[in-house]
This record gives sequence, structure tokens and C-alpha cells, in this order.
Amino acid sequence: MAALNKTHDPARKSWVDSANDPAGDFPIQNLPYGVFSEGDGAMCVGVAIGDRILDLTALEAERKLTPDPEKRVFDQGILNPLMSLPQTVWSDTRAKIAALLDAEGGDRSLPLVAQSDAKLHLPFFVRSFTDFYASKEHATNVGTMFRDPDNALMANWLHIPIGYNGRASTVVVSGTAIRRPNGQLKGPNDNAPHFGPSQKLDIELELGAVVGTPNPMGQPVSAVDAYDNIFGYVLMNDWSARDIQVWEYQPLGPFQSKAFGTSISPWVVTREALEPFRTHAPDRVKPLLPYLQETTPNNFDIHLEVALAPAGGAATTIIRTNYKYMYYSSAQQLVHHASSGCAMETGDLLGSGTISGRDPGSFGSLLELTWNGRDPLKVAGKERTFLQDGDSIDITGWCAGDYRIGFGNCAGKILPAVKVTE
Amino acid sequence: MAALNKTHDPARKSWVDSANDPAGDFPIQNLPYGVFSEGDGAMCVGVAIGDRILDLTALEAERKLTPDPEKRVFDQGILNPLMSLPQTVWSDTRAKIAALLDAEGGDRSLPLVAQSDAKLHLPFFVRSFTDFYASKEHATNVGTMFRDPDNALMANWLHIPIGYNGRASTVVVSGTAIRRPNGQLKGPNDNAPHFGPSQKLDIELELGAVVGTPNPMGQPVSAVDAYDNIFGYVLMNDWSARDIQVWEYQPLGPFQSKAFGTSISPWVVTREALEPFRTHAPDRVKPLLPYLQETTPNNFDIHLEVALAPAGGAATTIIRTNYKYMYYSSAQQLVHHASSGCAMETGDLLGSGTISGRDPGSFGSLLELTWNGRDPLKVAGKERTFLQDGDSIDITGWCAGDYRIGFGNCAGKILPAVKVTE
Repeated sequence: MAALNKTHDPARKSWVDSANDPAGDFPIQNLPYGVFSEGDGAMCVGVAIGDRILDLTALEAERKLTPDPEKRVFDQGILNPLMSLPQTVWSDTRAKIAALLDAEGGDRSLPLVAQSDAKLHLPFFVRSFTDFYASKEHATNVGTMFRDPDNALMANWLHIPIGYNGRASTVVVSGTAIRRPNGQLKGPNDNAPHFGPSQKLDIELELGAVVGTPNPMGQPVSAVDAYDNIFGYVLMNDWSARDIQVWEYQPLGPFQSKAFGTSISPWVVTREALEPFRTHAPDRVKPLLPYLQETTPNNFDIHLEVALAPAGGAATTIIRTNYKYMYYSSAQQLVHHASSGCAMETGDLLGSGTISGRDPGSFGSLLELTWNGRDPLKVAGKERTFLQDGDSIDITGWCAGDYRIGFGNCAGKILPAVKVTE
Repeated sequence: MAALNKTHDPARKSWVDSANDPAGDFPIQNLPYGVFSEGDGAMCVGVAIGDRILDLTALEAERKLTPDPEKRVFDQGILNPLMSLPQTVWSDTRAKIAALLDAEGGDRSLPLVAQSDAKLHLPFFVRSFTDFYASKEHATNVGTMFRDPDNALMANWLHIPIGYNGRASTVVVSGTAIRRPNGQLKGPNDNAPHFGPSQKLDIELELGAVVGTPNPMGQPVSAVDAYDNIFGYVLMNDWSARDIQVWEYQPLGPFQSKAFGTSISPWVVTREALEPFRTHAPDRVKPLLPYLQETTPNNFDIHLEVALAPAGGAATTIIRTNYKYMYYSSAQQLVHHASSGCAMETGDLLGSGTISGRDPGSFGSLLELTWNGRDPLKVAGKERTFLQDGDSIDITGWCAGDYRIGFGNCAGKILPAVKVTE
């Protein structure tokens, strides 16, 4: 699976003209999967190509693409049936779609839909959602702010890809509005908590890995297999209420501070499309235990940006960072996740953890960018520490090389909190 | 929904003779739902009555019971379709099943299966699993052992029903063997962790609440509605690896120490069957915030026991306790869980947290019973601190009043760890 093949050929062009724009996210080398509908129509599985969508549900109905000859996999409006098929089928299906869209020898009669006419949906059923904490810079910043600047990284951090189980029910597709959560809040000088809207609503810039191949309960995943078991990647915003978090998180971890919403981009960029952009993890500060050691470069060089726009105001890019800074790869996270015998399932979403680099402009949260509110940002002429009602966030990401593999957008706007009645 | 009705009439008898045994778990006043199969047959939904199972899938096919006149709800081998119907349908269906099984006026031609001939399965698709920490005695014991005996309860505990998201993929039905997990282990005097089998494998005696009625993202659940949104209850054993837990849990909570398996009993006892056994929560140490205040008695008086049997040895009852000791009810846990706008879904499982009373014999974990291994138990002539390979655990529980509402069994046996290859 890991070898480059014709689907990575930089010279390849598509008969869909817009796919050949070098500044576009979706050239023929990308081919991310998503779920779309038109008007009141059914949910269909599609592949983004330039500014169009190739309708795979229609192609399968016409028997022009049959990943599983025995049964339909594109008729349920989710990617899970495809993702549960063998990895060789993922690769073969990608190669067939590329051939159909190829400027040379492709099929120009194929059913295309304009992206501007389509509504994009959550691309897969999120079976479970796990969020990690894999940026050393992020963990160091948080430890410095809330614990001990001299011992900012906890003793376990350099040994374990630290993570926690998140809430799958509120993973939503880009464009879904996010309602400011209410929760228990207690300032350091308050005698007792009160219940009300979070005043420290934040973003977390992340990349989400989507598990395709499951492992049964009791049978861990090897470091060799883990990379291959991941079907693809999405942009992710793990919205966080810092003030709820600080009061609730001991001793069992974040709960309602993270439960109200997590946004992901609508297009799942396949692992195979990212192959040319593999890169090594940063140097190990301490040696990892053998079960976590990687023999291949399992990080990816993905440039990431976050823009913030106040209600009615212009968007300002507030973060520029890169996924390659992450200390633990998604493969290592998957290995660790299954190491106890935990069954991983098709559709599991593994959040990378907030992606922060060394430079302050590369920090992946407002908590870090404003140092917990101490240093406000200037955004479209306004000051921001944490998010205000009406603020919009838009994450973009892409790999840049002989061609561009883009992720599209992961956007969300903040709605006012539900009024607390007492 | 909360009123007692004819389904609670203690004088009622069934034409299924074994249901009239006063020592049995499943009289006509109980009627718990489960999923069973016979031989190589399909998974069917059933109701336990005495030592038999009433086959609801067959009844529905014959149109003798149609909870949803428009579509089948018992044809998928899981309870979720029934649980997603309105609460009035739960109540009506229960009343109709009771009438069919009534010694007076029942239908003696109904399809019954002997429980001894049936295999019982996981009764519902566990959409998400959340585990709470609602026993003040348990939280105090743990805090005394691992933190500060003088401040054993953390400051948030008396205000928040503390909980964390668990792992739904490894919730299994009673009888499923549990493989000892491997994990990162680090003793207090070790320089670095190693990877190997947990040496402190433990149980957690819990009750699981099963959410029937969902709430949409962004819309919290009121304290009045929360009680009613719960469809029923199961016994639960949240197997825990204490040595993995102590090294991994800071700052994001338990992860692999709890991910390898959680057992539940096969019969879901409906909330309605538990109505006569409602009782008030213990007195509040500090006042709760208004959103968590209950105006009705939402705890239940359920006697619980745990037996441990070494391989080839006799079972010894090691715990006798009661669910009524819990400081937070499952309704309060559900209210808090949704308080941020978190969507709760049909099939969500909410673990009560370890159920410990004040008396050492009522502590719900080996951690507490043996005080972290200091005081071994005597079990069938052997000493136990934590679980050994081959040990079997069996949880039972029942309400005792004019009749007995039993939960059946929640059992599991420990298999040796997967060998670590390096």
C-alpha cells in the first residue's frame, strides 16, 4: 500500500478542467470522498474533482464502479461500507476512479455535480471519537499555564500518546453552527460554582484520522499494520470551553467542556493521497517502548491555517502551522489505543490533539495564542481573547509539492447559549 | 409514566408457572427485554418470564404485538428500535405483554423458549458509553488511597456528577471472557515504564442506565424529563487495570485502563418495572445547583452482590451493597451530560460509577476491598488482592418487596494476556 503509483503521477491531468488548476484543492491526485445531496435528493457518496463532485452512488448503480461485486457500498449515504472493505479495495477503487477521470482514456459521460449546487453532509458514521494530545508544544504550553512552568510536561507524556474518549454524537460537518455551551463555572476566588454560558469558548486546530480496518477485542494492532488501517484524514476543530474544563477535569478528564461540538471537514482525504507527503516525526526526547516504535515516516507535511471572522467582519488568519510538528503520529495513537485489547472499529475518529508549533503564530488554540486571555488578538479591528457570539472560524489545510492535496474547509459559527432558566 | 399501574400489581400471576416462584428474578411484574438465539437461529428480541423467554420477534411477525404499526421493531436483533419509540409506547407494550402472560385472560399459545436452550446476546447497540463516579464512599476511598486522606473528595465532586466518556466498542454481554490487558506500567521507583500484563486487574460493580429518548445537539434535558428518558437498567462490571490507570490518567483521565472490556447483564430491566423501588438519594452535603435538583425520588433500592470463583474453585460472595447509596442518580447524570448541549442518543449507556457503601463489605471494587492490595481477601481457600487468570466474577442484583425484580447475572472470566513480542 505504501508505494507510490500512477495515482500519484504529477503529470496526470483530468478531463474535468477545474481539477487542473494548480491552486485548487482537488486535482486528480487527491480524490477525497464525501457525502452530498442536491435539493431534496438522497444522500450520495461522491469524490471531489476540481469544482465538481463525481457521483459514485450513480456510478455504482450503473455498475461502472463496483468496489464490492456482491453488494452496494455507496447506497447508504455514508462512507463506512467502503471503509470496511479490504485495503486493497480502497486502493483499487481509487485507481479506477482516477482512470475514469483521466484526461487520457477517461469517461467523459460520467455524472458530475457542481460543488456549488450540492449540500455536503457528515461523510461517515462516527462510531467512536477519541481525542489525543500529541503536540509537545501544545502540552508544554498548557502545562506551563495551568500547572508548573518548570515541569510543564507530565512524566507520562514522553512515553504515552495521551488521549481520552470524546463524544461521537456531536461530531458535525463543517458549516454546522455551534451553540455556546452552558456549564458549571467557578473562578479561583468563588466559594461555589454557578451555571451559565462559557466565557472562554475556544478552538482546537486538529487533524482527524478515520479508522477503516477494525481489530477485534483482545487483539492489539501492530505498529506495522496501524498506518495501513487508517482510511483517511479530515480537518477538525475540537471546540472547547476552557472555563468549564478547568473546574470539571479532575480526576477523570475533560467531559462537558468538549461534549457540545466537534467540527470536521466534509471531504475525507485518503491516506493513499497523502503518501507523497510522508515525513518523519520530530526527534524522540526519550526512547519509546518497542510497541510504539515506527520504522517508517508516518507523519505528514500538511500546512494548516485558521481564520477568524467577527460577525459582519473580514476574516483574519490567526494561525499558520503544520501537522508535521506532532510528536506522535496517528499510527502510534492507533497502536496505543488498541494496546490493551480495545477493539477499534470502522468509522472511529482519532483527533490528533491541538496542533501547535514552536512559534507563537503556530499555536493551535486561542488559549495559547492569547496566553489564557492575557494577550488579546487584533481581528478585523476588534480584540479577541476567546470567541464571541457570531464569530466564525474557518480551518484550511493542504500539502504542497508537485501538486496540491487540499482538505477543503472546516468552518463553524458561534450561536448564543441556550438561556438558563432557574 | 411514574404512576404505579396494573403491571405492578403484586397479586398478578402468570400462566408461565416458573414466573410465580417468589425467589425467581423474572415474575410477571418484571418483564425485562433481551436478545436471544437458539442454535444457529437468528437473533430475536424476547422478554424473560420465569425460566422462559417470550419471543417478541415471532409475536410481532404474527401481528400479536405491534409497538409501531407502521414498521417492525423486533426484527433487527437489538432493542434500539423499540427504545427509540415514544415513552408511551414503552408503557403500552409492557402492559400488552403482561396481559398476554397473565394467568387470567392471557394467551397460552404464545411462543416460549427455555432460557436454558437460548444463547443471550448484547441486548442493544451501545451507541456511546459514559462512566460516572457517583458513590461518595467510592470517591472518598480512592481519594484517600491515591491523593490526600484529609481532602479525599475533590472540590468539584459535591457539585458535579463527575464522569468521563468510556469505550463503547468493548461493552460485551455477560459470559464473554475478558482478556487481561497489556499496558504501560511504571512503579513509583521505576525510572521508566515497561509494557506488559496488568498486575492489578480489578472489577467495578456498577449499574448501567440505558438512554431511550434522545435529545438534539444544543438542547439540554430538564431534570423533570431526564428520569423518563431512561429506558431501563442493566448490571455492569467496568473491568479496570489499576496499574495502567495510575500511570496514564493525568491529565485527561482513564483510557486504556478501562478500554479492554465492560460487561453488562443480558436483560434490560425497564425503568417502569423499578418504579415501586424508587427511593431518595442520600442527603446533600452541599446544595446542588438548580439544574441538578430533583423533586422526585430518583434512586432505586437494588441489592447487589458480587461473587468471585478462582479457576476450579467455589464462588465466594465478596461484596454486598445497594444502589441506593449513590449520591447522584442516573437522572442527574443524564441532566449533567446534556447540560452543555451534548446530544444523548438511543442506546447510550451511562455507568453509575462503582457502587460502594460505608461498610467495607459493601465496597464495590477489589481496590477498596483489599485497600490497594494491602489486605488480601480469602476466597475458596486462596488469597486474592487483584484478579488472577482463570478467576470468574458474577454480579447479581434484585429489588425485594411484595415481589422480586431480578437482574439476572453479569459474569465474566479472566483469560491470560496476549503475549508481548518485542
